[in-house]
Parts: sequence; structure tokens; C-alpha cells
Amino acid sequence: MSDLRIADARVTPVLVEDPPLLNLQGVHQPYTPRAIVEVETEDGVVGLGETYGDDEYLEPLRKVAALLPGRSVASSESLWEIVAGALDASAVGGSLTDDLQARRLFGRQNLTKLHAIVVSAFEVAFLDAMGRSLGLPVHQLLGGKVRDRVDFAGYLFYKWEKHPVAGAPVDDWGQALDPDGVVAQARRMIDQYGFGSLKLKGGVLPPDEEIAATLALREAFPGVPLRLDPNGAWSVDTGTRVAEALRDTVEYLEDPCTGVEAMAEVHRRTGVPLATNMCVTSMREIPEAFRADAVQVVLCDHHFWGGLRATQALARICETFGVGLSMHSNTHLGISLAAMTQAAACAPGHLHACDTHRPWQTDDVITEPHVFRDGALTVSDAPGLGVELDRAALARYHERWRAGDVRSRDDVAAMRVVDPAWTAPSVPRW
Amino acid sequence: MSDLRIADARVTPVLVEDPPLLNLQGVHQPYTPRAIVEVETEDGVVGLGETYGDDEYLEPLRKVAALLPGRSVASSESLWEIVAGALDASAVGGSLTDDLQARRLFGRQNLTKLHAIVVSAFEVAFLDAMGRSLGLPVHQLLGGKVRDRVDFAGYLFYKWEKHPVAGAPVDDWGQALDPDGVVAQARRMIDQYGFGSLKLKGGVLPPDEEIAATLALREAFPGVPLRLDPNGAWSVDTGTRVAEALRDTVEYLEDPCTGVEAMAEVHRRTGVPLATNMCVTSMREIPEAFRADAVQVVLCDHHFWGGLRATQALARICETFGVGLSMHSNTHLGISLAAMTQAAACAPGHLHACDTHRPWQTDDVITEPHVFRDGALTVSDAPGLGVELDRAALARYHERWRAGDVRSRDDVAAMRVVDPAWTAPSVPRW
Ligand SMILES: [Mg+2]
Ligand SMILES: [Mg+2]
Repeated sequence: MSDLRIADARVTPVLVEDPPLLNLQGVHQPYTPRAIVEVETEDGVVGLGETYGDDEYLEPLRKVAALLPGRSVASSESLWEIVAGALDASAVGGSLTDDLQARRLFGRQNLTKLHAIVVSAFEVAFLDAMGRSLGLPVHQLLGGKVRDRVDFAGYLFYKWEKHPVAGAPVDDWGQALDPDGVVAQARRMIDQYGFGSLKLKGGVLPPDEEIAATLALREAFPGVPLRLDPNGAWSVDTGTRVAEALRDTVEYLEDPCTGVEAMAEVHRRTGVPLATNMCVTSMREIPEAFRADAVQVVLCDHHFWGGLRATQALARICETFGVGLSMHSNTHLGISLAAMTQAAACAPGHLHACDTHRPWQTDDVITEPHVFRDGALTVSDAPGLGVELDRAALARYHERWRAGDVRSRDDVAAMRVVDPAWTAPSVPRW
Repeated sequence: MSDLRIADARVTPVLVEDPPLLNLQGVHQPYTPRAIVEVETEDGVVGLGETYGDDEYLEPLRKVAALLPGRSVASSESLWEIVAGALDASAVGGSLTDDLQARRLFGRQNLTKLHAIVVSAFEVAFLDAMGRSLGLPVHQLLGGKVRDRVDFAGYLFYKWEKHPVAGAPVDDWGQALDPDGVVAQARRMIDQYGFGSLKLKGGVLPPDEEIAATLALREAFPGVPLRLDPNGAWSVDTGTRVAEALRDTVEYLEDPCTGVEAMAEVHRRTGVPLATNMCVTSMREIPEAFRADAVQVVLCDHHFWGGLRATQALARICETFGVGLSMHSNTHLGISLAAMTQAAACAPGHLHACDTHRPWQTDDVITEPHVFRDGALTVSDAPGLGVELDRAALARYHERWRAGDVRSRDDVAAMRVVDPAWTAPSVPRW
């Protein structure tokens, strides 16, 4: 019998290279923080988790890690109570419903969401440790996979050729600031990874330029499902205009506007399906949005929905209410990608191709980074998440974090390097 | 490493004694059928399930059992597809949305529900076998219990002293056909089991008599939460009148009327919380009912919602939409009661005291039947469901089924023994 009790839990912040990808807020910094979670059982089995590495998460993550020894990795649902206790007493302060800030790209941040984020990081590590201990893949701890492979979408970005910072890492993707650049980026991404769907991060250029880029993608890649995501940048009138222009071109528009009312209005006016990872990002936001028919596709993300079981529950809720499901991605390493794939494997009902930032990240902390074939990953049947920690890489990227001064992702600050007057745009911007 | 592949799966129908309990449809027969499911792994570990034993379920249960050898008990979600395949090709015929009949007391029966019922019986057996093989209680396969004990409600019935059939089993509860009889029954039930909540099965006598019985319970047991359940027997006006008469007396009214519209109207008029195990009994019935605010408490029941994971999903959906949760019970033996307790242990959010028919069943097929303390059961932490099959009892009750002629539960037919003109009442009856 395996001893599933926790002997130790550790949180290691790392910095990973990130290309100069543009979005509504500004531009990605040369490095972005991630946190790697390890939960070790009394038998010496280590379960892995990965999440945001910003300071605001590190403190609660470490606080919770200290509370885990003696508990069982088989009781992941108890994390909701453990984390709630830790957050209430932490320096974050306030109640679980307080708004903290609005700068995140996955909707308004508040303690409810911080709660779910911290639960998720450990839940994944618990499931990985439990699966490794029992010799079962994580998906079998969730009832078994309902699909053998998971399709991902190529994630296109407007981007600069290089970061405007001396000594920053350089990528070989070049610049993409117009339709030709976007199409060239897409072509390389399809050639290299075989993606069968494409998503363009918008909210960067005036809407007509983003419409033109989307139409250029359509012309270059007939039959490939396309999505455009301006992160809530547009007014209802602009969202309506773009939706009408791209009605026959996009699979769905993602967060054209900010807020339930505006989203519902654009859908009511145009009938174009709208996806979101901003309007609905927690269970408590579902009822109002579903009643208003504000979203037709919810982008799950186990990092902020509260873990793999919560993602499975979200999938069932969407299935029950006839709302579609896809998956959101933030910059991530291989532990998160393994968890995303297991979550996607267990989501009942139809799942649109999932987002991934993978092509943009060359750093990884696992020994055998994932390889996409035909734009898809095969669901691992190996015990746990099916990935092994590369301790040398972990040490290297942690040392980069220790020696560096990036302590939170801040796309606004990165843009200020070239435009000192830049501030987080208020929405609607167009 | 345990071998979780299935070597054999068996379905054994049994007949269990049932007292002459009255309801809208008629009266319980002297014996009622249940089906016991056994799923045996290659290692010889046996997982148990229990469900309805009526002929309409036996055929698909047996058909599915024959498809299971070689599959893994760790992949319970695959049962949805396996059972769908078996039902499509079965003699039941028709599509999964066809209505079959309306005589069941858990809402309209259709193939969607038959599908969920068959999945559930095997899912519980899969989880039991998986837990036994791995040395983990079922609740830890669901993320771990969120409560250590589960409160149950005493289930009061109008009843005859004995069945109007020669040679039928006799119980010692006596007759209960008026407020005094109901209060006496409740007193014994509380003395014997310690229940802290009481539910009266109504729809049997004219509403004023059931109001009087409920008020008598309130007077006899101050502070004890009370419920009255006429199984949808009343018109909107009658439901409104009863709700107003019992406004300060009941915790909730259960299915006062039939259908979303009538339920919503009674709640709109009175504000009294309404519970249901008839108006909403499958995922696809949730959106309409929740939008109409027709139900304020959903009674989960793993037997017809599709198993323990589906029940957990239902609990999350209810929590998300601010709808309360309790648990429905049909006549059951100890395997079902063990599964109900594990399901209740894993339901997030507030859970009202659960229904159980246990006091009315003296037969059991487990070696150590459950004992209520203070109206509650402690959640078992033993591997699997934590119960052992009593093979001698199983053989005895199966022989009773083989030798007998009861092949489905039929409260209407049982009433015809004393009233040859009796037919299933059309609703609203009052
Ligand atoms: Mg987005
Ligand atoms: Mg009922």
C-alpha cells in the first residue's frame, strides 16, 4: 500500500524567456515568472504543479505549502478549505469577494480567483503524486479520458522583431505587424506544428487592420477555423461591426467587449458566437452570463478555474447549458501543458481546439518537452501527469529568477520602455 | 501494481420485503425488485453496485455487463459511451430522447434517464472495485470527503397495518392513516434512529388532512425540520394554499405540483422553497427549471443522475446557481446506502438531510447493515464503499425473485388488489 501522506511541499519561482508579443495591455517582458510546485509523499514520490509565479501568488503558495505535511494527496478537495484559511489570514487581507485589481488578462482579479488559483496549483500536484503512487494516469483519477488526443490551436501574435532592452533574449520569428507578417507567422506555425486551427491575439491595432489580418489568414488557409481575441478592447458598436465583417470567417470571436451586457448585446445583434476567458472566469460569474446568453463558448483554464476537477465540473455545466467549451492559455511550461492535456482529455462533450503558448516558449522544466503532431498532443497514459522534472533546468531558471528583478508579469511596464507615457488602456479602446 | 481490468461482471435480481406504504400511485407491493451488480477484476477484487431491479433495467444491465470484460474499472466515464451503444441496439429501441412512460415516481422516464441509471449501477461498482484494489475509500477517488458524517431524514408514510395479500410479510409499525398515526410513527423513528429531520410522503389523502398531519408533527416535534411530498399531486391553487398554510412549518415543500410552470408559479406566489425529484431529474432539465426559478432544492440521487461523479457535478451546478441540494431515496439495500453516503460526503456546499427508506427495509445483502446514530451515518474510510456482500443473503433473495412473480415495482397494481377500479391518478388530483 502506497503512503499518500505528504512529507514536504515546495514552491520554486522561475523566470522563462518570453518573446515581445503584443496585446491590449502592452507587450510581454523578456522574462515572465512561473512557479513550480512539488508535493512529496512519505514514500518519496513527487507530484508536480505549475502556475503563475508573480509575487502575489508566491506568498499564498508558500503559506499553503507549509500547511500540507501530514495531509493526504488523495484528498485534493480539502484544498479549498485549507487555502481559504491561509488566504484569510494572509497579508492579502480582506474577504474572499474583494476585488484586488483589474490588470490581469483573465478578467477582474479578486480573492475568489486567487483562492482558485492557489488550490489549482496544489490539486494538480496532488493528482500527479497520487497517480504516480498508484500507477495510474491522472485522467483515470478523474474517471478516465473521453478522448485520446487533444487538438490545439496555433496562437498568433502581433510582435516586434526583438525586445527593446539590451541583453534580452532574441527569437527567430521576426516581426509581425501587418497581414503579411501574421500570415507568415501562421505558415511557419502550421509547417512546424501542424495546427489545424488558428487564433490571432488582437486588441493591438485599430480594428480594421485586425479584420484585414483575419481575412488574409482566411485567404491563405482556407477551411482552417479562425479566432480573433482583442481582450475586451472594443465598444458594442465596434464589436458588432467586426462581428459582421468576420461573420463567415471566424469560428468565434473571443471577448470582443468587456462585461456581460456588452457581450450579450453583440451576440444579440450579430448571432456570431462569442468566447470568453474574461467575462466568465469563475463559477459565480456563470449564472448571470448564461442567463444573458453573453457567451457561447467558455474557455476553461485549470489554473484559474480551480484545478482539473473544477475544469471537469465546468465542462459539465457548459454541456448542461448548451454552451461550448475551449481552453485558454497563458505562458506556460511543460508541467502546465501536461495538466492542460489531461484536463482536456476528461472534458465531456465537444471541445474546440485548445489554446497553447507553447510555440513561443523554448525554455522548459521537464526532461522531455511535448511535441505536437498534426497540431495535437496524445493524452499520456503514464502514471500521474506523465512528465519528469528536469532538476538542472529548474535550478537554472530559478537562479535566473533569484538574480533577476522581474517579480511579476507586467505588459504595461514593458511597453513603457519604448513609450514612457503608456498606461493600461481603458476599455472600450476602440 | 493492481490489475484493474475486468474479468467478469454479474447482475443478480433480488426481491426484498416492503411494507404497505401509500403514495399517489397506490401502495408498495409486499416485495420489490432490486438488482445487485458485481464487477470482478483480474485480481479477483469484486466491486458492488445496486439499482432498480425491474425487468426494464435488467435487460440493459445484463447487456452492458457482457461488454465489460477486458475494460478497466479506472475508466468509469467510458460507461456513458458503452451504455449508449448497448441501449441503441437493445430491444428498448428508439432514440435516447424518446419518452417511455410516466409511471415512475422520479419524473418522466425516457431513454436518457435509462442511460444514466445503467451507467450509475456500474460506475458505483467500478469505483468500489478501484477503491478496494488501491486501498482507498471511494470518496478519495472523488477528491476526498468534504464532511465526515451525513445526516438523514426520517421518512414517514401513510400506511396500512398489513398487505391485503395472504402470506405477505408483516411489519410491526402498525397503521398510520391520520395525524395521530403519523406522529406515533415519527416518534418511534426518532427514538430508534435519532433522525433530526422528518419527511412525510403525501399525495395520499386530501390536502387538508396532510396539512393537519404536518401541523401535528410540528406540535409534537418543535424545531425539527419538516417536509411534505405529494409527488406532484396538486394544482397550482392547491399547492399555493398548502404552501401558505405550512409557510412557517416546513423547511421546504417537495414537488407540490407537476411541471416547471406550475412549480415556478407556486414559488412565485408564496416564496416557499420547493424541492424536487420529479421536475428536474436529468442534466438536460436543469436550464429551463433554473431559469424559471421552479425549484430551490434539487434532490440528487446517484441512481438516476448517472452515478457518484454525476452527483458531484450536479452538486457543483446547484452550488454555482445558488440552488439547494438534498438527496432522494427509493427503496434500497445497504450497497445503495453506502454509495449514497459516499456521494453525500463529496457534495460541495450545504446539503439538507438526505432521504432514506432504510427504516422500512429489514432485508439486506451486506454483512454489516448500516446503523444510524443521531440520524446520521459516519462516512466510511474503508477501501471502496466499505461494505461486504453477504452471499448467503444474496442467494436467498435471488431465489425469492426466481420463485416469485414480481418483475417490476407497480404501486398501481398493488392498489388494485383492494380496489379493482384503481388506475394511476391523473394530476393534478387535488
Ligand atoms: Mg482570451
Ligand atoms: Mg419526492
